[in-house]
Amino acid sequence: MANTKIELALFGVGRIGPTHLNSIARHPRAHLKYLVEFDLALAKKCLDEEGLEDAVIVPANEVAKVYADKSLHGVIVCTPTPTHQKIITESLRAGKAVFTEKPLAHDSAAADECYKVAEECKLPLLCGFNRRFDPTYDSIIKRVGEGAIGHVRYIKTTLRDTMDPSWPMLGTIGTCWVDLLIHDVDLACAVMGELPITVSADGDAFADVIRKNNDFDQAIINLKFPSGALATVEASRFCNYGYDQRLEVFGIGGMLEGANFHDDQSKLYTANGMNRPLLQPSFQQRYRESYYLELDHFIKVIQGKEKLRVTRKDGVAAIKICETAEKANATKSTISLQW
Amino acid sequence: MANTKIELALFGVGRIGPTHLNSIARHPRAHLKYLVEFDLALAKKCLDEEGLEDAVIVPANEVAKVYADKSLHGVIVCTPTPTHQKIITESLRAGKAVFTEKPLAHDSAAADECYKVAEECKLPLLCGFNRRFDPTYDSIIKRVGEGAIGHVRYIKTTLRDTMDPSWPMLGTIGTCWVDLLIHDVDLACAVMGELPITVSADGDAFADVIRKNNDFDQAIINLKFPSGALATVEASRFCNYGYDQRLEVFGIGGMLEGANFHDDQSKLYTANGMNRPLLQPSFQQRYRESYYLELDHFIKVIQGKEKLRVTRKDGVAAIKICETAEKANATKSTISLQW
Amino acid sequence: MANTKIELALFGVGRIGPTHLNSIARHPRAHLKYLVEFDLALAKKCLDEEGLEDAVIVPANEVAKVYADKSLHGVIVCTPTPTHQKIITESLRAGKAVFTEKPLAHDSAAADECYKVAEECKLPLLCGFNRRFDPTYDSIIKRVGEGAIGHVRYIKTTLRDTMDPSWPMLGTIGTCWVDLLIHDVDLACAVMGELPITVSADGDAFADVIRKNNDFDQAIINLKFPSGALATVEASRFCNYGYDQRLEVFGIGGMLEGANFHDDQSKLYTANGMNRPLLQPSFQQRYRESYYLELDHFIKVIQGKEKLRVTRKDGVAAIKICETAEKANATKSTISLQW
Amino acid sequence: MANTKIELALFGVGRIGPTHLNSIARHPRAHLKYLVEFDLALAKKCLDEEGLEDAVIVPANEVAKVYADKSLHGVIVCTPTPTHQKIITESLRAGKAVFTEKPLAHDSAAADECYKVAEECKLPLLCGFNRRFDPTYDSIIKRVGEGAIGHVRYIKTTLRDTMDPSWPMLGTIGTCWVDLLIHDVDLACAVMGELPITVSADGDAFADVIRKNNDFDQAIINLKFPSGALATVEASRFCNYGYDQRLEVFGIGGMLEGANFHDDQSKLYTANGMNRPLLQPSFQQRYRESYYLELDHFIKVIQGKEKLRVTRKDGVAAIKICETAEKANATKSTISLQW
Repeated sequence: MANTKIELALFGVGRIGPTHLNSIARHPRAHLKYLVEFDLALAKKCLDEEGLEDAVIVPANEVAKVYADKSLHGVIVCTPTPTHQKIITESLRAGKAVFTEKPLAHDSAAADECYKVAEECKLPLLCGFNRRFDPTYDSIIKRVGEGAIGHVRYIKTTLRDTMDPSWPMLGTIGTCWVDLLIHDVDLACAVMGELPITVSADGDAFADVIRKNNDFDQAIINLKFPSGALATVEASRFCNYGYDQRLEVFGIGGMLEGANFHDDQSKLYTANGMNRPLLQPSFQQRYRESYYLELDHFIKVIQGKEKLRVTRKDGVAAIKICETAEKANATKSTISLQW
Repeated sequence: MANTKIELALFGVGRIGPTHLNSIARHPRAHLKYLVEFDLALAKKCLDEEGLEDAVIVPANEVAKVYADKSLHGVIVCTPTPTHQKIITESLRAGKAVFTEKPLAHDSAAADECYKVAEECKLPLLCGFNRRFDPTYDSIIKRVGEGAIGHVRYIKTTLRDTMDPSWPMLGTIGTCWVDLLIHDVDLACAVMGELPITVSADGDAFADVIRKNNDFDQAIINLKFPSGALATVEASRFCNYGYDQRLEVFGIGGMLEGANFHDDQSKLYTANGMNRPLLQPSFQQRYRESYYLELDHFIKVIQGKEKLRVTRKDGVAAIKICETAEKANATKSTISLQW
Repeated sequence: MANTKIELALFGVGRIGPTHLNSIARHPRAHLKYLVEFDLALAKKCLDEEGLEDAVIVPANEVAKVYADKSLHGVIVCTPTPTHQKIITESLRAGKAVFTEKPLAHDSAAADECYKVAEECKLPLLCGFNRRFDPTYDSIIKRVGEGAIGHVRYIKTTLRDTMDPSWPMLGTIGTCWVDLLIHDVDLACAVMGELPITVSADGDAFADVIRKNNDFDQAIINLKFPSGALATVEASRFCNYGYDQRLEVFGIGGMLEGANFHDDQSKLYTANGMNRPLLQPSFQQRYRESYYLELDHFIKVIQGKEKLRVTRKDGVAAIKICETAEKANATKSTISLQW
Repeated sequence: MANTKIELALFGVGRIGPTHLNSIARHPRAHLKYLVEFDLALAKKCLDEEGLEDAVIVPANEVAKVYADKSLHGVIVCTPTPTHQKIITESLRAGKAVFTEKPLAHDSAAADECYKVAEECKLPLLCGFNRRFDPTYDSIIKRVGEGAIGHVRYIKTTLRDTMDPSWPMLGTIGTCWVDLLIHDVDLACAVMGELPITVSADGDAFADVIRKNNDFDQAIINLKFPSGALATVEASRFCNYGYDQRLEVFGIGGMLEGANFHDDQSKLYTANGMNRPLLQPSFQQRYRESYYLELDHFIKVIQGKEKLRVTRKDGVAAIKICETAEKANATKSTISLQW
């Protein structure tokens, strides 16, 4: 199987879909056979941009023919979260491996159901926690596990997205807890190799539309792990200096940091001081390599060369922690978790 | 008065006293007249090290002659916290300006009493929140106040001290809340220019002696300010890579960071990667300039050239916030504060 | 023509060829039709690695069929320098646009002949000075041209390759002057937008095989430009901490620097200080983006969307300056150049 | 002698004198007894600024009484270069240890004469090559000597001063060769632990007054050392982004860099990118610590605790190399040196 290509279908080219199309176009062993999307013009434009003109565009109501294609190995789910469970379970039952964007489903119970189907079908279900595949974070996770910084005492994650506070759709993208903070909650758990025993949280809203929804655009979740380590997971919907994503892990034996990337490596010194360009503008640039490596992992899982790096426990726990954070904030209390 | 020197007495050359002796030795307008210290040999050694041999060493039981000296302008208090209130009030009543190390007193009520005496005596009482005088933090505080990063959303402070986890005296230095975290609690308030409305906290103990005391050597305090900003104040008693002290202020209009200093500015590149030396080993190096500028401020206040930069409200509030954090951690709840 | 693909043939998959294959595989508008290579097994392996299995492998002695293919738009020349002139001129005369690796030919006269043929054939001939396409350097070149740092006074370039000093083939790769330093000589000229009026040079050999060849593995070329600016172009065949490539441009109004990339963005702090990973290991990583953008430029030139960014004057001058440096070093004198 | 103070006289408070006054004021074992200066008002102001009011101001024509004072241990020479030889030899013959600013004398022959007198008088004569005492450079020199980067291949020094191009006195401060580049020529020799065998040089003038003097305000000196290492010593009179001073040493086993200091450790991120403050404005800030440690060394030499770290060979060679560079530039040739 080594040199044949893995045949893929991708569902949805909204926010994250084009990023995965780009990975497919660059991967020597991936081949896009179908793009399922109700907006046909957008679908065509996305395929053109990546030189993937030989893929077939399938309207959402004709998806049966995708499932029916025996030559298709896997499905990549990039549609809005409420549609995930249906597409995941139908794909699995049609015999396809599934790689889905996070959150895997709209709540932790639904996510667990999806994994149950995957186990029944004996097919891989990969949740897209791409931070785990970022070379910098992957290296940090490994070194923490190998004891490079000894007993871990504190983890700090930073995620500041570059949305426009005046964007009218802001109110429709899901609460900060399950939609925004989930990536870094999973990252903190991946670093620790254990799940937290207490959760507290706080937030603040700056954008009117967010405030009206009783949601937050700046939030923190505090975790405590069984080994005693504390964690602060911090996120903002807005950031005017680029996409700010950092990780810091402090232990008795040292500290590991994961820093940002700037747009380029130039430095300008003038009478105004030293200036570096903006941070990379969005996740497409910052995590480009991680998305590629995540796809590469999915392909190798299908080829039987690797085992799933994001487990059922991981995919369900991240949602459950975020659900708990939402409650902890509402009650201004610290909530205990049992696993 | 411009070119005459300000006559000073310093009480206590334990942990922080020698740092202030060094500032006095370097300051063109400061003159040390008395060093009050029960350990006479230590006192002599400290004076020799700074070339301050013309100062008179006074045993603690003969302090009356210090208070009686009309030519003495000010007193610097570097003794253990439980002794502060007595020395401060006696010095004030003897007509001396007072500059005291933090925390100003053992609890917020006692601190307030001290300030009351200072007001009655119409003398300055300066609490040693030296971070405010650090050039980097001072510049950040000013720029935040001027709106350089717009509406503030999140503050993160880091303080990791370089104590030895096996040091037997560890258990005697005061709880993490009022002894360790107070500096950065004050820093967060100084940046915001307002006092927090809620406090929560968590901690963990690594060293046996700390755990036995029901104290923590790793702790965080979460604050929420009236303007909506959140803050995480994080501290550790231990850090093996040097004295780690950082500040980060994030706003809708940008971010300001205050970074660490390394031991020197060299970088070594080899087949093992790039190596920079350790961070500066302790507060003596990292905050050397801030201690000098703090003394300079005290002298200028005595000279009538500057107004006190750390107010009664500041000195009392920091202790009260830390006392509240201790309660919040004990009850696993978020506690509201009113001012 | 916008959405059809540009048909390409690539000659030679030795040192640099696979890098260009990777760019072709990632480019949505490029299609590899032929790979000309005498080592058929190597050719197959390279195509497999990039998922380019539909390209036809052509032994060097059957190249006529490549030239005869009317559908072929362009040729990419990655063979050893002595073969360049023949392949370039045959390709041009067969009606193909040509993109060739540097140096364009074995000497400046031969290079000029190649450009003459290109002009006769009215076809683009692009010399692969990829540094000009690197986002960091491109940004620096533009900003210097726009006056961001005022009148330029000094340029410093650094190029330290990561060859193995004990590699037996070291002695066969061309002299340091024309093979190694040419890239950065061109970069200095690109920054200045003018050609130097004097050249001096010096060098030293560390590896035995280099010394026996009377060649150097560490060398510098000093340039003076008509505007008064000085330049130091410095290069080494060896570097044990990664591929070190830097640019510094100093002017009356400031300085622009282009820094290196590390393998990842992690930082490890321990009792041994702060450690970052190695610099990226070779040109394949450091200049990956520049090679892609260079190919993209070649395709847009073929599509008529862009004009050649590396001119005849540029391609010939860089070789001539390096030839002059070789003489200047031999005679220990500063040599004047006229253009 | 350990706890008595070393009695010092300082000559001249023009450009560099106040820097040394500041070191004296901070040093626990130094005491300024005399300040020799023809401008009495300036002398008084400088003493006031450092709190050194008990020093006696001596007009230049009454210097005999300084030499006659048996209690005086040492003399620090901060007057213009043409006066050095006379003050140095008179001080030595009066039995005083001498610490003089660079260049030690107006030419290498005069410098050698001064050292001859010092040897006759059996007194220390310290040339103020303060870079050797800078903690960063000192650490680099030591590590290179210990083999941390193996066989050295290339050294690059950068010195960009922050003079004002329109300053009318610019033309009077000595040629770039002996006045400006000497510090870094000495630094390169200190790193190598050997003296160069060839010298070449080039320069350019930007400021009118410099050009009229046939001097340069931007210059480079290229050196080749017996071990094969090449060096580029580069300097500018002007720099608008602060006092830029860097060192880079590249060897077969790695690279050591000495980086600049910024005014403070803050970083501002906004929609304009990341901004750090200016580099420190001048040598007073950048080399403050090195000047202190240089004085400390002078005091320890007087106390018999240390041996001179800058030898006769060092002090004479640096001037001779700069004199040779001037000739090499004039003749556009590489000149050999023998030692």
